[in-house]
Amino acid sequence: MADSALDLTLDGPALTAWLVDFPSESGTEKPLADAIEAALRTLPHLTVDRHGNNVVARTHLGRAERVVLAGHIDTVPIADNVPSRLDEKGVLWGCGTSDMKSGVAVQLRIAATVPEPNRDLTFVFYDNEEVAAHLNGLGHVADAHPDWIEGDFAVLLEPSDAQVEGGCQGTLRVILRTEGERAHSARSWMGSNAVHAAAPILARLAAYEPRRPVIDGLEYHEGLNAVRIEGGVANNVIPDACAVTVNYRYAPDRTAEEALAHVREVFADCEIAEFTVDDHSGAALPGLSHPAAAAFMAAVGGTPQPKFGWTDVSRFGALGVPAVNYGPGDALYAHKRDEHVVVDRITHCERRLHAWLTA
Amino acid sequence: MADSALDLTLDGPALTAWLVDFPSESGTEKPLADAIEAALRTLPHLTVDRHGNNVVARTHLGRAERVVLAGHIDTVPIADNVPSRLDEKGVLWGCGTSDMKSGVAVQLRIAATVPEPNRDLTFVFYDNEEVAAHLNGLGHVADAHPDWIEGDFAVLLEPSDAQVEGGCQGTLRVILRTEGERAHSARSWMGSNAVHAAAPILARLAAYEPRRPVIDGLEYHEGLNAVRIEGGVANNVIPDACAVTVNYRYAPDRTAEEALAHVREVFADCEIAEFTVDDHSGAALPGLSHPAAAAFMAAVGGTPQPKFGWTDVSRFGALGVPAVNYGPGDALYAHKRDEHVVVDRITHCERRLHAWLTA
Repeated sequence: MADSALDLTLDGPALTAWLVDFPSESGTEKPLADAIEAALRTLPHLTVDRHGNNVVARTHLGRAERVVLAGHIDTVPIADNVPSRLDEKGVLWGCGTSDMKSGVAVQLRIAATVPEPNRDLTFVFYDNEEVAAHLNGLGHVADAHPDWIEGDFAVLLEPSDAQVEGGCQGTLRVILRTEGERAHSARSWMGSNAVHAAAPILARLAAYEPRRPVIDGLEYHEGLNAVRIEGGVANNVIPDACAVTVNYRYAPDRTAEEALAHVREVFADCEIAEFTVDDHSGAALPGLSHPAAAAFMAAVGGTPQPKFGWTDVSRFGALGVPAVNYGPGDALYAHKRDEHVVVDRITHCERRLHAWLTA
Repeated sequence: MADSALDLTLDGPALTAWLVDFPSESGTEKPLADAIEAALRTLPHLTVDRHGNNVVARTHLGRAERVVLAGHIDTVPIADNVPSRLDEKGVLWGCGTSDMKSGVAVQLRIAATVPEPNRDLTFVFYDNEEVAAHLNGLGHVADAHPDWIEGDFAVLLEPSDAQVEGGCQGTLRVILRTEGERAHSARSWMGSNAVHAAAPILARLAAYEPRRPVIDGLEYHEGLNAVRIEGGVANNVIPDACAVTVNYRYAPDRTAEEALAHVREVFADCEIAEFTVDDHSGAALPGLSHPAAAAFMAAVGGTPQPKFGWTDVSRFGALGVPAVNYGPGDALYAHKRDEHVVVDRITHCERRLHAWLTA
């Protein structure tokens, strides 16, 4: 592990390496949160608050707009890929290089180098993003201190390959159960087959045509899929129960209520004995038409992309704060043994954000 | 446990009680096989052979026909229901009373009391019927000494409530696997859903109209059913595999080959990646048109019933020996804690068989 004092004069790549070499698997973030809090407290233009292992730092310049820059400080378990290693091609390897200590390094660089931003800034460093939703530090802060993370626009520095990814799709998981009546399979007419009763459910799924709505210029792509199916008692028994787990990924022009109503409608005539909502996280609009977002897009350039997966931008969406993903890492390598980041991207992201906030 | 010497002068009910009180769970039949062999060897009109814990005794009178009377000597595990108990209503309670020590008692009574039958007789007492098919003693004898169990007609003294149950349906179990390609469920169009690919399989099953052919006057009733379905990797992954286990119960006018061809045809256009035969036991014709069977029916009376479940009569069928089930027990109580037999039925079955074999 590196020295526990965080040096904010390091450049973005060096800061990323320092953060990677300071392990912070989910649940063990306290030492890193301590180091970040201590470093931020040395910056006179910021007030610093702490809730658990979540650190929030803010400017209070009375600007017309406030922008939130947020990132999680935890990583998935290390897989023999710490300490970090910088190769001769300018690629930094190691756990968290992409997801998302390079993004956290950019946050820290902006905090340290932009004392008088053109928009008020809020920096959020939070824990437990890589584990269960109920542990998520951003969620805890949103519940306990929603005022700490208020803003007009938020940038989550999750890996997006230095491209802007707007909003995120929602995800709804339901379990559809069919019922039957057990009987010996030699006398099947004495019972009723719950697996056969699931035939219309699979037929609806197989025939489903997902929407691809365009929102704020981004084309989303929905999906309605069985992710699990399970039924059966024994090889000679007619099954009396079958469960199909269905995941609906939906575009951010649908509310959570509309998404649920849609799924109920798709399976309305399927004779489902029990319809259970197993998990539901709403979508988030990209919010690219907001003035702060438009200025952000102009500053960072490129063509925004829709975000298909669910991310914490949805938590900002729920608070009424439009949010995008924009970070130097590449999501394709997140959670992998060969996780890495191109160090030029770290510098690139920092420069673009710097330009946006000082123009 | 009772005295280990088997007394063939006991009447049917007393013999049943003696056999029930002599535990012989599957795998532990040797002492009982020893006792049966010793008792049969005292009968001068029989030759006795032994293979493992299977005992075969035969007359050699040069009759025009030979009849086989067969029964298994093992039971399912005892469930606090041994020793046996005879209640005031003439019901004998205990493990094996129905399935099928009452039938074995009838076999032993006929062996002891019919020294000059009108048809040559073969008595088969075998082990391991209640466990895996490959352990079944009748199968072992059929493989090692098929000549020992040759005959024109066979009666299996399995519980049939003193009614004749003809032949048995075959049972074929196949596993139908569909394939897809994994992808994150947020980007489902990057993969291919194996559970959705199983939709046509379930549709065929739900729409299937089973045959009810009449054979030798008995109406059989087929069935084609999913007994298991399983698919899924994780809640956010498009499944790349799904397996549907299908059980086809078929009437004895179909050979094993025809049954398999039929199932292949039902699912012919279902894009099945792998079609596996997991288990297959052929059907057995009732053979009620055979002269020996006709005489048997005339002697025992009643209306024969089709046997829907698979039984060891199929093993005789495979050897070209028509076979029926006819025993004093009631199959509804087999394998149950409250297993029992009405003792009058034991006497009834013995008398009817006696009449048939001495007329």
